[in-house]
Amino acid sequence: MPDILHRVGINASPERVFKSLTTLDGLRGWWISETTGDPGLGGTIDFGFCQMKVVEAIPDQLVRWRCVQGPEEWVGTEVSFALIWKNEQTFILFKHANWKEPVEFMHHCSTKWATFLLSLRDLLETGRAHPTPNDIKIHVGD
Amino acid sequence: MPDILHRVGINASPERVFKSLTTLDGLRGWWISETTGDPGLGGTIDFGFCQMKVVEAIPDQLVRWRCVQGPEEWVGTEVSFALIWKNEQTFILFKHANWKEPVEFMHHCSTKWATFLLSLRDLLETGRAHPTPNDIKIHVGD
Repeated sequence: MPDILHRVGINASPERVFKSLTTLDGLRGWWISETTGDPGLGGTIDFGFCQMKVVEAIPDQLVRWRCVQGPEEWVGTEVSFALIWKNEQTFILFKHANWKEPVEFMHHCSTKWATFLLSLRDLLETGRAHPTPNDIKIHVGD
Repeated sequence: MPDILHRVGINASPERVFKSLTTLDGLRGWWISETTGDPGLGGTIDFGFCQMKVVEAIPDQLVRWRCVQGPEEWVGTEVSFALIWKNEQTFILFKHANWKEPVEFMHHCSTKWATFLLSLRDLLETGRAHPTPNDIKIHVGD
């Protein structure tokens, strides 16, 4: 099954990156401004257009979500963020796994994830991020 | 074999997008400023860090390159740009196919391709693109 893969390097500690993935303030800061729910291990996060169950959360190392509600193509897929400290930065190895088919929407989501991971980088490095609804647009009418 | 997929929508005709993929001026404008070689069908384009042979070029519809020299992980991979006009814009369905393994460098390239496709969009919509060496940086030291 095809996966979306990305990597960004952030001038911030793994602790700060982990916090931005596991707190409402963090998630609201770089992905979806209206995020609610419980971003801790075992909780379910409500991003509005989708809900993610937190199935793994190893402090400062790994966060993994399973999509339990949302776009049909997303339900059952998993999103993971592996954090690796090297070369004086925290690298995020990102994966959105288990898509059934490489549909056009998957192409769209791949590009969109890149912009959100850079938004996360910008949040931590400069405080100037672009979460939805101020997200980077990637097509006319996005 | 894993692929990198992306999609952007551009407020420009398929003709203009195709031209930006098949001329030196176009390629220099959004990807690599120092591009040389022959970007026409059957030609080989020299992007400095890699060389791509143009194996398919269907006017205003499709461009496909094969990497014939460059990073070890890239040699033999194929990069394609399918152009689709819908909803008053040209969508590029991008694929960098035939990676042997989903190595960390593939994660990096996936994010980087997203920034370059948005650079192409910006070139055609506003004239303000960011080709290498003025590319969007995605990690410390990029």
